Amino acid sequence: MEQIICMAKELSKGQGPVIVTRSDNSIYERISSVFPEARYYETAKVIVIKDNKKLKINRKSYVCIVTAGTSDIPVAEEASVIAETLGIRVERIYDAGVAGIHRLLKHKDKLLKARCVIVCAGMEGALASVVGGLVPCPVIGVPTSVGYGVCFKGVSALLTMLNSCAPNVSTVNIDDGFGAAVISSLIVRGK
Amino acid sequence: MEQIICMAKELSKGQGPVIVTRSDNSIYERISSVFPEARYYETAKVIVIKDNKKLKINRKSYVCIVTAGTSDIPVAEEASVIAETLGIRVERIYDAGVAGIHRLLKHKDKLLKARCVIVCAGMEGALASVVGGLVPCPVIGVPTSVGYGVCFKGVSALLTMLNSCAPNVSTVNIDDGFGAAVISSLIVRGK
Amino acid sequence: MEQIICMAKELSKGQGPVIVTRSDNSIYERISSVFPEARYYETAKVIVIKDNKKLKINRKSYVCIVTAGTSDIPVAEEASVIAETLGIRVERIYDAGVAGIHRLLKHKDKLLKARCVIVCAGMEGALASVVGGLVPCPVIGVPTSVGYGVCFKGVSALLTMLNSCAPNVSTVNIDDGFGAAVISSLIVRGK
Amino acid sequence: MEQIICMAKELSKGQGPVIVTRSDNSIYERISSVFPEARYYETAKVIVIKDNKKLKINRKSYVCIVTAGTSDIPVAEEASVIAETLGIRVERIYDAGVAGIHRLLKHKDKLLKARCVIVCAGMEGALASVVGGLVPCPVIGVPTSVGYGVCFKGVSALLTMLNSCAPNVSTVNIDDGFGAAVISSLIVRGK
Amino acid sequence: MEQIICMAKELSKGQGPVIVTRSDNSIYERISSVFPEARYYETAKVIVIKDNKKLKINRKSYVCIVTAGTSDIPVAEEASVIAETLGIRVERIYDAGVAGIHRLLKHKDKLLKARCVIVCAGMEGALASVVGGLVPCPVIGVPTSVGYGVCFKGVSALLTMLNSCAPNVSTVNIDDGFGAAVISSLIVRGK
Amino acid sequence: MEQIICMAKELSKGQGPVIVTRSDNSIYERISSVFPEARYYETAKVIVIKDNKKLKINRKSYVCIVTAGTSDIPVAEEASVIAETLGIRVERIYDAGVAGIHRLLKHKDKLLKARCVIVCAGMEGALASVVGGLVPCPVIGVPTSVGYGVCFKGVSALLTMLNSCAPNVSTVNIDDGFGAAVISSLIVRGK
Amino acid sequence: MEQIICMAKELSKGQGPVIVTRSDNSIYERISSVFPEARYYETAKVIVIKDNKKLKINRKSYVCIVTAGTSDIPVAEEASVIAETLGIRVERIYDAGVAGIHRLLKHKDKLLKARCVIVCAGMEGALASVVGGLVPCPVIGVPTSVGYGVCFKGVSALLTMLNSCAPNVSTVNIDDGFGAAVISSLIVRGK
Amino acid sequence: MEQIICMAKELSKGQGPVIVTRSDNSIYERISSVFPEARYYETAKVIVIKDNKKLKINRKSYVCIVTAGTSDIPVAEEASVIAETLGIRVERIYDAGVAGIHRLLKHKDKLLKARCVIVCAGMEGALASVVGGLVPCPVIGVPTSVGYGVCFKGVSALLTMLNSCAPNVSTVNIDDGFGAAVISSLIVRGK
Repeated sequence: MEQIICMAKELSKGQGPVIVTRSDNSIYERISSVFPEARYYETAKVIVIKDNKKLKINRKSYVCIVTAGTSDIPVAEEASVIAETLGIRVERIYDAGVAGIHRLLKHKDKLLKARCVIVCAGMEGALASVVGGLVPCPVIGVPTSVGYGVCFKGVSALLTMLNSCAPNVSTVNIDDGFGAAVISSLIVRGK
Repeated sequence: MEQIICMAKELSKGQGPVIVTRSDNSIYERISSVFPEARYYETAKVIVIKDNKKLKINRKSYVCIVTAGTSDIPVAEEASVIAETLGIRVERIYDAGVAGIHRLLKHKDKLLKARCVIVCAGMEGALASVVGGLVPCPVIGVPTSVGYGVCFKGVSALLTMLNSCAPNVSTVNIDDGFGAAVISSLIVRGK
Repeated sequence: MEQIICMAKELSKGQGPVIVTRSDNSIYERISSVFPEARYYETAKVIVIKDNKKLKINRKSYVCIVTAGTSDIPVAEEASVIAETLGIRVERIYDAGVAGIHRLLKHKDKLLKARCVIVCAGMEGALASVVGGLVPCPVIGVPTSVGYGVCFKGVSALLTMLNSCAPNVSTVNIDDGFGAAVISSLIVRGK
Repeated sequence: MEQIICMAKELSKGQGPVIVTRSDNSIYERISSVFPEARYYETAKVIVIKDNKKLKINRKSYVCIVTAGTSDIPVAEEASVIAETLGIRVERIYDAGVAGIHRLLKHKDKLLKARCVIVCAGMEGALASVVGGLVPCPVIGVPTSVGYGVCFKGVSALLTMLNSCAPNVSTVNIDDGFGAAVISSLIVRGK
Repeated sequence: MEQIICMAKELSKGQGPVIVTRSDNSIYERISSVFPEARYYETAKVIVIKDNKKLKINRKSYVCIVTAGTSDIPVAEEASVIAETLGIRVERIYDAGVAGIHRLLKHKDKLLKARCVIVCAGMEGALASVVGGLVPCPVIGVPTSVGYGVCFKGVSALLTMLNSCAPNVSTVNIDDGFGAAVISSLIVRGK
Repeated sequence: MEQIICMAKELSKGQGPVIVTRSDNSIYERISSVFPEARYYETAKVIVIKDNKKLKINRKSYVCIVTAGTSDIPVAEEASVIAETLGIRVERIYDAGVAGIHRLLKHKDKLLKARCVIVCAGMEGALASVVGGLVPCPVIGVPTSVGYGVCFKGVSALLTMLNSCAPNVSTVNIDDGFGAAVISSLIVRGK
Repeated sequence: MEQIICMAKELSKGQGPVIVTRSDNSIYERISSVFPEARYYETAKVIVIKDNKKLKINRKSYVCIVTAGTSDIPVAEEASVIAETLGIRVERIYDAGVAGIHRLLKHKDKLLKARCVIVCAGMEGALASVVGGLVPCPVIGVPTSVGYGVCFKGVSALLTMLNSCAPNVSTVNIDDGFGAAVISSLIVRGK
Repeated sequence: MEQIICMAKELSKGQGPVIVTRSDNSIYERISSVFPEARYYETAKVIVIKDNKKLKINRKSYVCIVTAGTSDIPVAEEASVIAETLGIRVERIYDAGVAGIHRLLKHKDKLLKARCVIVCAGMEGALASVVGGLVPCPVIGVPTSVGYGVCFKGVSALLTMLNSCAPNVSTVNIDDGFGAAVISSLIVRGK
């Protein structure tokens, strides 16, 4: 948490928002006593201390955030809340795992028009490759620590994403919704 | 190779065929000088020394053997040749990797009617989960050693298959087309 | 648990049963307040929400579920309860580890007539190979997380099963009694 | 190589170029006898079979490709040649490893204006974090298999990049200059 | 803790100080009831039971102790307190991670004059290489268990330091501030 | 090889024999030009330079050396030749793997009377546990590097043996027939 | 614990003692209510339910049990108590780690006369090699899970013992004092 | 090699010598045609291109370089030759492995007077801990890739050294004699 706070403090000097990730209710209570305007996103475990009023969200260009299962939603929400706080429009497609490929394919139009896609998936993490093959934009894989046994707390999903046969997939650390949100915002906003 | 030969010798006393896997031209030359009727399947690297004339192939019930890429075909052919030698009808669906999901979906009918599916895939091995979600029969995943970097010679594909979110997928050793063929023949023929 | 619930919900629309795995007493209390007919199998940690009255168990064809030690029984019971709920006859052979091979051999007749065998074993997991060499049907290995030190929470047993010198053994994830039950039901019932 | 060729063939039907990676002189000879216009980039081990005349390189927006040492140049050249073939302007900064931080800092202006940076680094791969901290754009880390001992053929550099404390760094497979080039081209060109 | 106590007891017979590491409040209470003069350094989790009055700190020659982030400070303080107790002058440079390279460079003068530098860093541990490239003295890397996901509790930072492209970096065990302090004191004091 | 030679030289000063392991024809030629009485055991890859005439083999107490497959015989022969050279009677039981448990059980009498058993097995290495459960003497497991895929060059067999549920099994390094022979000779000869 | 109890029950039918390992106070209370004669060895965490009155301890032949540090004593005591219960004389040499080699060397006479030595060591586990080089009898290494960081809960000590350059060292699972005691009793008692 | 050459070139502008490591005869031939004064140290595989005439070796303060076995000598010689070229007096103690602890102890005087000790050891690498316990100066462990099976090409020796119970041991990469020489020269020469 410390490095996020540091980063947030640094950002707060500029025009960017101030965000705390991997938070919980007790942290929120401590923070909200200092910053009464702070908001807490419970599923995402994210506290937004200082928003950025000046940021105008570009409603046309957006990032799609996709999850394989319902257990991956907290990581996806971390990414979603942060991307939105960074001024990016987010389209959520949750619970579209590859074991029921039709659940993904019915969102094909929305995926094809995205400027960037974030895929949050645990267990075998196969969703990143399938999405990578569907879309003509950069895909950021976020392996999640969801699963048991040889999921090895997200390592198996990470390896899957790094080995993706679709060449437009890059990967961040396990459960790193924050990193994925930052990268996607840099892609979607342009310069 | 030795353990395959031993197994083959033991089987040859019964009514089963005699097979040598992981073979090559020089082994074939040595064997064909003793068993002139032996046939060599080059892509599969399989020598069938003694066939089983009495085995009648059941034309209705079949195993589908699917590969993700063209590099996985040698392992798939090992499985195919052995399954056929064991009296099983084989339907091949090669080069249907998840990065182009339509290549797989156009074979949906053939997959749905199979009694068993073998999926041979390297790199991230995601194909096994996708196929597992499509079909109502047992799926045997064969991770292949195809890929580079963090494919770790098939370990990444193996982990993917073991973590499959589709519950009808079981897995054999890396590049073990032989094992998959034996298991599929036991499933397809029944008792 | 979430993915099991999702799967259960989906299945409940068809004619299959609805099952929750990896459960406990508090989950059962929550569920039974909604589904008063739900039953809780404590050793298996399985809740059967909706049974399938129409399923007739074929009394002739059965799956044998074998454990190496008494500590492997919870995983074996997960497999047993689910296989029975899926309409499959189960024969249990518990505590037949390889360090006392006679304990296994006295069940040889029952094993030989099975349509499929599930082997649940932790520590070194050697039982799967021994059973694989005895029976002429598919064997599904379920490595369990039983043991200490270099059992690495089931990884050692998993490697043993994947390396099995008996070619009729395939493997599922560590402690995955659910997957083994699903696959065995697809093998035993046929199409 | 096969999957690259397949992808190249598929792309050749559209307006994109056709590229073969991980090539060598003997492959080039085979290919140039069929496609006499094919060019071979020896350091990059890349063959460009069919170029794309219609692509106009946007001279303003560019990708910076940075290497830590001279041994990382082949991977960087794979990325550079492919990015250029995909119509992207490339600025090369080679041999700017962190053990002599001034070698990197003297290129600060060029880095700050890039739309995307690719960092190719082996051994400890620390360059990706340092660059990530300097630039306000997405950074794609390409771990290379350069090094000995506990570099573990690029795994150590991969872990470094995935753990990057700079949040704008994502990572591709070891030695995967191709993937980095594709992603950077999707970022630089926009839609 | 036991081995530290043993070592401390042995040292207490000579002229060295007696130190307990990885301590906490309850241990301190137990110890201070026996040794009322014992002092407890809370951040460092170090108890100094018996100091060494005769040791004169050489004010000219010193060790620099640098951390990448604020989370690495407890390990750095373990090293600092012990080095000072061993009679060594310590200069602290905390929170100078590579993602903001200027935070490190502003301390360049202090670093250049050090007789030895200890670098405490978790996550990707890149700071050790950067410092190694800056200074003309031995650098001791202390990987810390700070981070999540593929930091693997300090293993990733350890690999980074062992692979350092700066040849003046050696490494100790994860979170081993004690070892680093002992080695640095042997370097700084001379014979 | 060097450390074996050194050890051999040291032993040669006493009354023990002098042995070179992991040898080949070219080494034998070099050695036999110096020691014309040296004998070369080709399967075992062992050269016995100086025998021990005074050693009388105790014909009653013996070590059983068992292999799982024919591929494990070279390691077993290394153990056998060295144990015999150290004055121990050896009973060989080769090719008695667990996939055909009857092959082992027919040697039960010979196993029960042994003073010590060495089990050489690759792939899943399950034989050590089964033998451990049968015999009332110490069992030394020698994992061999036989197998492919997830045998990981003997690591899987090693883990199996270390996890053995039979408590009388200890283990040596992969392919270390030499070590097993030395230990068994110390057990069989007594003091 | 279950497998130990089973084994104990089986042994109790013969003339051997009945032992429970990895026990604690609550287990002891439960057991002593059934077997009032049961004794509890607290450091060893061993309960001896039924002793063997007929076993006469051979006072001449003994096993030496050596530890590297004081933290290794619980594992050593598990081995000691069980070996004594199995009728073997035990000589304890505790806290003789290699960092103070004189602590080991002063026990050289006792070590040289042992019929077998058990070495319990965590951290780097180097003691097994040093003892192996000193004594002319079998050495059983028991890696302990003592240490932090890259001790990896005993894996590092295990690797050290398996790699021992002294050829008379074999190894059991991490913290497996029970196995070492059983094997040493089989060596010391002879047949 | 490239990074060493670069470093050498950079150093050559100052007053330091110019060195190429991991060399061979063909590289030497190429270099000696340009630098006729270059010398080649064959065991060390080191080429000294430009020596440093001005460096005066301090004959009193020296580094001891110790090897466990004869196979570790090439790495030790790399360290020795480079340390001498950097103007440091080197005392060699080769083949003093822990399996014969007397071979080490007879050099105790020489070790005690050293300003720094480099320990090169493969297999289990235990020598570093033993030396660390003997001497009152910094010890630099160089794990070597000597061994087979679970030595894992030096990883086991590396873990041993990092886990050293002697607190004065730090470690460099596997086979990194160069790094150890550089660090020892910085310790021995002082400032």
